[in-house]
Amino acid sequence: MNKCTKANKMNAYEELVKISRKIHNLEHMSSIVGWDQQTMMPQGSNDARSNALAEFDVLLHQISTDAKAAELIKQASTQELTKIEKASLLEIKREYELHTILPDELVKAKSLAGSKCEYSWREQRENNDWKGFLVNFEEVVNLSRQEASIRAEHTGLSPYDSLLNIYEPDMNSKLLDDIFFDVKSWLPSLISEIVDKQKNESILKPTGTFSIKQQKDLGLSVMKKLGFDFDKGRLDVSAHPFCGGVCEDVRITTRYDEKDFIQSLMGIVHETGHALYEQNLPSSLSFLPVGKARSMGIHESQSLLFEMQMGRGRAFLESIRQNVVDAFGSSDVFCIDNLVKIYSEVKPGLIRVDADEVTYPAHVILRYEIEKDLMNGVIEAKDIPDMWNEKMKLYLGLDTRGNFKDGPMQDVHWTDGSFGYFPSYTLGAMYAAQQFKTVETLYPNVNENISKGDYFQVVSWLKENIWQKASLLSTTDLIKEATGESLNPKYLKQHLEQRYL
Amino acid sequence: MNKCTKANKMNAYEELVKISRKIHNLEHMSSIVGWDQQTMMPQGSNDARSNALAEFDVLLHQISTDAKAAELIKQASTQELTKIEKASLLEIKREYELHTILPDELVKAKSLAGSKCEYSWREQRENNDWKGFLVNFEEVVNLSRQEASIRAEHTGLSPYDSLLNIYEPDMNSKLLDDIFFDVKSWLPSLISEIVDKQKNESILKPTGTFSIKQQKDLGLSVMKKLGFDFDKGRLDVSAHPFCGGVCEDVRITTRYDEKDFIQSLMGIVHETGHALYEQNLPSSLSFLPVGKARSMGIHESQSLLFEMQMGRGRAFLESIRQNVVDAFGSSDVFCIDNLVKIYSEVKPGLIRVDADEVTYPAHVILRYEIEKDLMNGVIEAKDIPDMWNEKMKLYLGLDTRGNFKDGPMQDVHWTDGSFGYFPSYTLGAMYAAQQFKTVETLYPNVNENISKGDYFQVVSWLKENIWQKASLLSTTDLIKEATGESLNPKYLKQHLEQRYL
Repeated sequence: MNKCTKANKMNAYEELVKISRKIHNLEHMSSIVGWDQQTMMPQGSNDARSNALAEFDVLLHQISTDAKAAELIKQASTQELTKIEKASLLEIKREYELHTILPDELVKAKSLAGSKCEYSWREQRENNDWKGFLVNFEEVVNLSRQEASIRAEHTGLSPYDSLLNIYEPDMNSKLLDDIFFDVKSWLPSLISEIVDKQKNESILKPTGTFSIKQQKDLGLSVMKKLGFDFDKGRLDVSAHPFCGGVCEDVRITTRYDEKDFIQSLMGIVHETGHALYEQNLPSSLSFLPVGKARSMGIHESQSLLFEMQMGRGRAFLESIRQNVVDAFGSSDVFCIDNLVKIYSEVKPGLIRVDADEVTYPAHVILRYEIEKDLMNGVIEAKDIPDMWNEKMKLYLGLDTRGNFKDGPMQDVHWTDGSFGYFPSYTLGAMYAAQQFKTVETLYPNVNENISKGDYFQVVSWLKENIWQKASLLSTTDLIKEATGESLNPKYLKQHLEQRYL
Repeated sequence: MNKCTKANKMNAYEELVKISRKIHNLEHMSSIVGWDQQTMMPQGSNDARSNALAEFDVLLHQISTDAKAAELIKQASTQELTKIEKASLLEIKREYELHTILPDELVKAKSLAGSKCEYSWREQRENNDWKGFLVNFEEVVNLSRQEASIRAEHTGLSPYDSLLNIYEPDMNSKLLDDIFFDVKSWLPSLISEIVDKQKNESILKPTGTFSIKQQKDLGLSVMKKLGFDFDKGRLDVSAHPFCGGVCEDVRITTRYDEKDFIQSLMGIVHETGHALYEQNLPSSLSFLPVGKARSMGIHESQSLLFEMQMGRGRAFLESIRQNVVDAFGSSDVFCIDNLVKIYSEVKPGLIRVDADEVTYPAHVILRYEIEKDLMNGVIEAKDIPDMWNEKMKLYLGLDTRGNFKDGPMQDVHWTDGSFGYFPSYTLGAMYAAQQFKTVETLYPNVNENISKGDYFQVVSWLKENIWQKASLLSTTDLIKEATGESLNPKYLKQHLEQRYL
C-alpha cells in the first residue's frame, strides 16, 4: 500500500507534464483558429466560428481545471525535483490556480457581460454614447470587482493587485505608485520641452502611392534582417495588428495604407520583437507553462526594444534605409536625417494607440490610476469621465470634456473587464530601456554594428538573457540577472531625454 | 419515478442534438486547422501541428464515442419524432456506430500502421520500391481486414461491403459488379474508337506565361459566375487541390502552373461543384449528421457535374471564353472549337489523377476489383502487381510490368487503409451523368442558357433535388426522387458517346 502511494507520488510531476502537453496542443488549435478569424475568415462565417471557439473554450476550461491536477500538484510538491522542474511546478500551480480560483458561474457571467458590453460598445463609441455604454459597463465592473475580491482573498493582495498579477506576476501597486509618481514629476515638462523644440523642425512626409506588394516585400526584408524564422512563422494582414499563433508557428500581422508605409513598417518591427521572443523560447520546454513568455510586460518590452529603443533610432534607420530606397526609389524623404525626424515626432493626442513613446506613459498612468481606484472601490464607473478630463489636462494639457469616444471609450480593454492590463505597456517600455542600456554598456560599438545591419549583439544578448529564460525566473529575478538591478524607471527617462532633447 | 423516466425519454433526442452540435463545433476547429496545414502553415511547424491535431482527434473520438449516446439513441428511438427527426436519428446512430464499433486498440494500431506506411511510401514510391513498401503495407492490409471483419459481423455484409458502406451507404459489391461488368463490355472499344478519331485532330495548345495573379482572378470570376458565396468561403493554393473547411466557411484550393492555366481553371470548376454542395446544405440542419453531404459518391457527382457534364461541354466553354480572353488577351487558342478540343482530349495513361473522363472508370474498376478481393481474402497484398498488370493491359492496353510507382503505388488511398473509397469516383461520374440528363430533359433550352452564362436551371435544380436534401434520404431514394430512377450507368455511356464520338 505504502509502496503504491510512493509510486504515485513519484509520478505526479510527470502526470502534470502530460496534462500540460495536452493543454499546449489544444491551445495550438485555438490559436491558429483565432488567427484565421482575424486574417483569413470571410465575414459571413463569424457566427459559426464564434460558436466553435466558445465550445472549444468550455472544453479547454474543463481540462485546465480538472480537480485531479490539484491533487497531483500537492503530491508533486513533495517530490524531489530538479531546479527546472521546481520552477515548472510553480508555473503549473500558478496557471492552475488562475483558472480554478473563480467559480464557473462567475467566469460565464463575466464572459457574457463582457461580450455584450464589447459588442454594444462598437456602435456606442461611434455615437459618443457614454450613457448607453455605462449600463453594460457597470455590470462588467461589478463582476470584475467580484473576481478581484475572490482573487484578493486567495492571494492576500489588494483587489486591484490581484488582477494586475494575472498579467504581471510580482508587480504591485505600491511599486507602480512610486514609479509613476516619479514619471509624473518629469514627464509633462519633458513633453513641453520636446514639442517646443520640434516646432521649428521641418519634416518631409512621404507622398504618392506605396503599393501593398512593395510594402509587404519591404516588411519581409526587414523581418529577415532581424532574424525572423520564416520556416516557423508568417506575416499577414489584419484590421488590428497582433502577434499570434504558437511558438512553433508565429503569425504576425500588419495593416497597409497605400498612402503611407511609415506606420506599417515600424508596426512590423514591433510585432517582430514579439515574434522573436516566441520563436526563441527554449524549445525543450515549449509545452510547459515554465517554457512560455514571462509576462505581458516582458513581452511588450521585446516589441518596444525592437520598435522604440532600436527601431526608431538613427543606427537602425541607417541599416534599413537602403531597403526603403530599393522598395520605393530614391527620394529626399528617405535621407537619414529626415527618416529620423519622421520616426521621432512627438505630439500629445487623445488616442493611446496613436501615441509616440514620449506621451504614451501619460495615457497608461491615467488609465492605471482610474482602474485601480475603480477596482478598489474608491470610485464608481460613472465617475470616470471627470477623472479622465482632469488627468488628461494635467498630464497632456488636452481638453476632453464631452468627448467620450476619444476619451474613456477609446480602448477595448475595459469593455470586457481586462482591468490590470494597461500598466504592462509602460512597464514594457521601462524594461526595454533598461535592457537596451545594458546592451549598450556591454557593447560600446553596438550602434555602429546596428547601423551596418548587424544586430547580432542585441539579438544574442536577448536570446541568452530574456528569450531562453522563458518563465524559469520571476520577473524581478529575470530583470535583475539580465541587467544587474531591479526595474528602474530612470533608463526610460534617460532614453527619452537623449533621443528627443 | 415513472414520470421521471418518461421525462428523460422525452429529452433523449434533444440531448443527442446537443452532442451533435458539440461535435459539429469541434470538427469546425480541426477542419480549419487542417486547411491551414495544407495552405498556410510554414513547413517547420509540421511536427507541432501534427501533435496538436492528433491530440485533438483523440479528444474528439472520446466525445464521439461516449457510451451515454448509445443509451440516448435507444431511448430516442421510442420517442415520437417528426419525419426529419427520424431521419436525423438514423444518421446520428449511423455515425455513432461507425465510430464505436471498432475497439480503441484497433483504431490506434490502424492509425499508426497507416501513418508509418504512408510516410515511408513517399520515398519508396520515388524509388519504385515495391518490396520495401510491401513490408508496411501487409500490416495495413492485415489491420484493415480485422476492421472489415468486425464491421461485417455488425452489419451482416461481406467484409469489403462493410468498408464500402463507410463511404457509400446503400451500395454493395453485387450491384457494383453488375454495373462494372456492363462498363467493361463497352469501355475498352469506346476508348479505342475515340483515340482513333482524335488522332487526326489538330489542337492548338496555350503557349507563353500565364501569371498566377491573372489565373487567380480568372478562377475567381468563374467561381462568382457559378454562384460561389465569397462571404462564406475562399480560394487558396495547396499542393493537392481539395475542398475543405466547414459548410459555413468553405475553403477550396487549386495549384497554378505559370506555363498552363488549362488544368487549374477546370480544377477550380471541379472544387466549386463540391463547394456549392456544402454552401447550399440546409443551414437549419448544418450541425446534425442528417444535415451533412449524403456520401462520397454524391459529393463527387457534384464536382463532376460541374467539371465534366457542364464544365468541359461546348455551352459552358462558350460562357467563360470571354473571361479567358479578358485574362490573357485574344488568341486562336481561345476560339471555341479549339477550347472544346483542349478540354476533351482522351489519352489512356498510367496515372489515375491525370486521366480524362473516358479512361477514368477503367482506373477505378481495376482498383475496385483488386481491393475487393484483397479485403475478402481472395488474394494477398503480394499478388497485387500481377493483377494490376493484367487488368491495365485488358482495360487500357498499357504495359505496366515492373513499374510499381506508376502502378499500384501511385495512390495514397491504400497506404493508410482507405479500402472501399475508390468506387465513389466512378459512382460520382454516373450519378452526375444521370442528374445532368434529368436537367437537360426537364429544360430543353438548358445548354443555350449555359452558353450565355445563365446557369440558373442547373443550379436551382441541384439546390432543390440534391443540396437541400442533405442526408434526409438514403442515396438510393435521393437519386430516385431526383431523377425518377435508381442509379443507371447508361447515362454515363450516352454522355461519353455523345461528347466524344
